[in-house]
Amino acid sequence: MATSTPGVLDRLPTPLPVFQAPMAGAQDEALAIAVGRAGGLGALPCAMLSVDAIRAQVAAFRAAVRAPIHLNFFAHHPETPSEASLAAWRARLRPYYLERGLDPEAVSAGASRAPFDAHLCALVEELRPEVVSFHFGLPSAELVARVRGTGAVVMSSATSVTEARALEAGGVDVVIAQGLEAGGHRGSFLTNDTSKQPGTFALVPQIVDAVRVLVVAAGGIADARGVAAALALGACAVQIGTAYLRSDEARISPPHRDALARATDDATQITNVMTGRAARGFVNRVMREHGPMRDDLPPFPHAATVLAPLRAAAERGGSGDFSPMWAGQAASLARTGSAYDITRELARGRRTG
Amino acid sequence: MATSTPGVLDRLPTPLPVFQAPMAGAQDEALAIAVGRAGGLGALPCAMLSVDAIRAQVAAFRAAVRAPIHLNFFAHHPETPSEASLAAWRARLRPYYLERGLDPEAVSAGASRAPFDAHLCALVEELRPEVVSFHFGLPSAELVARVRGTGAVVMSSATSVTEARALEAGGVDVVIAQGLEAGGHRGSFLTNDTSKQPGTFALVPQIVDAVRVLVVAAGGIADARGVAAALALGACAVQIGTAYLRSDEARISPPHRDALARATDDATQITNVMTGRAARGFVNRVMREHGPMRDDLPPFPHAATVLAPLRAAAERGGSGDFSPMWAGQAASLARTGSAYDITRELARGRRTG
Repeated sequence: MATSTPGVLDRLPTPLPVFQAPMAGAQDEALAIAVGRAGGLGALPCAMLSVDAIRAQVAAFRAAVRAPIHLNFFAHHPETPSEASLAAWRARLRPYYLERGLDPEAVSAGASRAPFDAHLCALVEELRPEVVSFHFGLPSAELVARVRGTGAVVMSSATSVTEARALEAGGVDVVIAQGLEAGGHRGSFLTNDTSKQPGTFALVPQIVDAVRVLVVAAGGIADARGVAAALALGACAVQIGTAYLRSDEARISPPHRDALARATDDATQITNVMTGRAARGFVNRVMREHGPMRDDLPPFPHAATVLAPLRAAAERGGSGDFSPMWAGQAASLARTGSAYDITRELARGRRTG
Repeated sequence: MATSTPGVLDRLPTPLPVFQAPMAGAQDEALAIAVGRAGGLGALPCAMLSVDAIRAQVAAFRAAVRAPIHLNFFAHHPETPSEASLAAWRARLRPYYLERGLDPEAVSAGASRAPFDAHLCALVEELRPEVVSFHFGLPSAELVARVRGTGAVVMSSATSVTEARALEAGGVDVVIAQGLEAGGHRGSFLTNDTSKQPGTFALVPQIVDAVRVLVVAAGGIADARGVAAALALGACAVQIGTAYLRSDEARISPPHRDALARATDDATQITNVMTGRAARGFVNRVMREHGPMRDDLPPFPHAATVLAPLRAAAERGGSGDFSPMWAGQAASLARTGSAYDITRELARGRRTG
């Protein structure tokens, strides 16, 4: 207990057991480069990027630093929204549209969130990232086999022991144990019920005991104390998002940055109204007035598409009323500064024995 | 970070930084004696005991072991249930009464859960426990001052940083940071909204940073790894309940013991249908069919009173369908054996430097 297993750290792709969480919509390669330079694992969230943008970001990373890169993709099963669910959500948001002088019937294309497919798999085969991760489960066995065939370390997130076992059976090298404290989308893929999902403290050791692959802890870890605690629970490394959101390299809106600066331990909630899937973020107006959880929303990501024009208009006025401002429950511990310094500070929590 | 603050452990009342959580309805002095013998802090839950029973249990503890004793009391503000809330809850449970051939109009006295008052304070002054804790906030300033006047260490539980600051201002020596993973009743006293309450991983360091009194971590800690992790987060000790529920000394029903033996990471939920207040326990029939959370219940503890005849009848048949089977999210880590051995095993996670 609380002692390192010989060899485990040798199996990590980086000198430091600090993995930067891929955060779609909140970063580009600058964050990954800074983390890589510090000895951690930098990540690029690819779910909202075009193939050309992914290629360009990887090239910029390779030119800047000699370090492994982690590409993250979504593995959800897209659902077509019913007309009824779209109409109900539009009707609910109509007063906000009118309040801001926007046309409630305008249709926004919204940001795409395409799942991993053969096309993106060919890109992985071309770019050869050292680490590939999936959120919302895994793609088909055939695609997982092709990614493994490139030699990449394959990771995915589990929010329960059952999901961890399913990922191990599906061929991952690393399970990311995502506790309930974590910011952003829950990686859940076997249930939508967050009421039974464990916190990081309970989840990590139970997953460590249940699987033979490496376990990385995520959720509520935002300083060196948290890194030390996660390693004591049996994790081989941590994956950290929120603690990088105030870094110089993060690309977030002013309202999001303001919310981080004011963060308290009870400032976030898990909600599905921002996108159609459960995710943790700072409480905003639409969550307060119509959330945090509903069962009549258009499916992910279509709830976000309906919100997009409102979000854009509100952000132009400096408001996060309609913006997803993802953050975990330890957001108040996040510090400003370079992601390089943040990574080195986090790594002070690593085992030294 | 992750290093001990000189002198902090010297301020603990016991050699080991392991506090046994007081668990009303699940234990008597046998558990406290075994923990005390092992070097931890044994506790007696007093909220459901008569003055004579408290006196007898303390006497038995004093006769058995030379160790500090911790007496726990509730500090809730009793509310009189409305006739409407009682009638609605009775109507909801009526089919279960009929199914078991019970009279749905029968009125049960139920177990009392009296809050701390001048009478109990006089008992504390007589018995001189080394540690006194409160759940659901604190009693009046006058009563807190009288307890402090006995020389007892005073503790209470916080489920947020705001509550921790309120407890410090109210005169506690120790704040118990109760993360969302914890089994049993939430100690919350400033809000009933559990949706914003942090997990242990996020809560402990934020409370440590916010108050100057000692912080004890609770919630999801059930083995030596968890103890090590809690200390790394800045706690000076841990308070542990669920890991003692399978001990030889626990006094729980067979269905509760069976549920613990089968426990998984996602077997519990926070519910208010068992008593009228939010508490975490194994999912049972009444939680599944009418919970987990309702806003039309009789106030604590009257929801439990209406359930009492059903609970008794079901338990006679070996069923926990209507029983509160409190447990935290790390219940699967709980081991059988003596509470002495469990305490010593937990303490392997303590700092050795």
